Amino acid sequence: MNETLDVILREARPNDAGNIIQFLKQVSKETPYLLSKTNDLTIEEEREYIEISNQRLNSLLFIAEVNDRLVGVASVTASQHEQLDHVGEIGISILKDYWGFGLGKELMHEIIRWAEQSTIIRRLELTVQERNQRAIHLYEAVGFKTEATMPRGIKIDSGELLDVRLMSLMIN
Amino acid sequence: MNETLDVILREARPNDAGNIIQFLKQVSKETPYLLSKTNDLTIEEEREYIEISNQRLNSLLFIAEVNDRLVGVASVTASQHEQLDHVGEIGISILKDYWGFGLGKELMHEIIRWAEQSTIIRRLELTVQERNQRAIHLYEAVGFKTEATMPRGIKIDSGELLDVRLMSLMIN
Repeated sequence: MNETLDVILREARPNDAGNIIQFLKQVSKETPYLLSKTNDLTIEEEREYIEISNQRLNSLLFIAEVNDRLVGVASVTASQHEQLDHVGEIGISILKDYWGFGLGKELMHEIIRWAEQSTIIRRLELTVQERNQRAIHLYEAVGFKTEATMPRGIKIDSGELLDVRLMSLMIN
Repeated sequence: MNETLDVILREARPNDAGNIIQFLKQVSKETPYLLSKTNDLTIEEEREYIEISNQRLNSLLFIAEVNDRLVGVASVTASQHEQLDHVGEIGISILKDYWGFGLGKELMHEIIRWAEQSTIIRRLELTVQERNQRAIHLYEAVGFKTEATMPRGIKIDSGELLDVRLMSLMIN
């Protein structure tokens, strides 16, 4: 598309908690590609999650806003165990109305930049439904490589078991 | 080895909690192949974990005893989210003195049998350090297939990043 959006990308702040909860509710209604349903956090719990995420050197919660509206969220989470604290797992979701504007790619670039500066993250990984080819192409475009296709990696509402792809990017 | 052991394999019971904690402490001292350090649960927390594990249809905690001594633990854990409740993740550990007697294979057979009868588990998966070839051969021998080798999947105490293998077995 040629239309461009005036987007602000920034780290989430504790008082974004309410908007993030609303956002996640809408995303889980409109997107068939989620790999896990959103946890039903209270605003207080979400606020605490944001605070912890901001404090840790190996986790990130990043948001995209258009005209003061929260339209995308990207997260990196990592274990606090030292054997795994260098592995960042990516989650990313964007409101359906804002698909196709390149927002996902911008969020991925922000995540990669952040990881490169983190000094702790050495491997970024993500899982994505195999049928979500649009997302897979986006991840490939920013440098992710396929490590595996996992049969029966997810069960959708119909009960059908679908393949899930595991992708990664090494950070140096 | 030709020596045989008199082994009892059974589901863990709540009053195994203390022995399991001792067992996990010893294993984490003597085994360089663990993928995550044991959480330091109290006896009360471990007891609760066993009770929950016994109640759930998609989780299992199984132990091996030799002369009343706890020498091996095998677990299957699965998400309570319905998209992932069919994916059982396997963890298995055996005291070093009891390596080489086929205990690992017996525990894996128990897990697979249990999964086949569970009606809920449709995919078993595990991760294992690539350098732990003995374990990889065991998993292959009971039917597991390699899905991926994940570069930098784990950081060992020296700080070195090692490959981790992802393996799975479909359950029908």
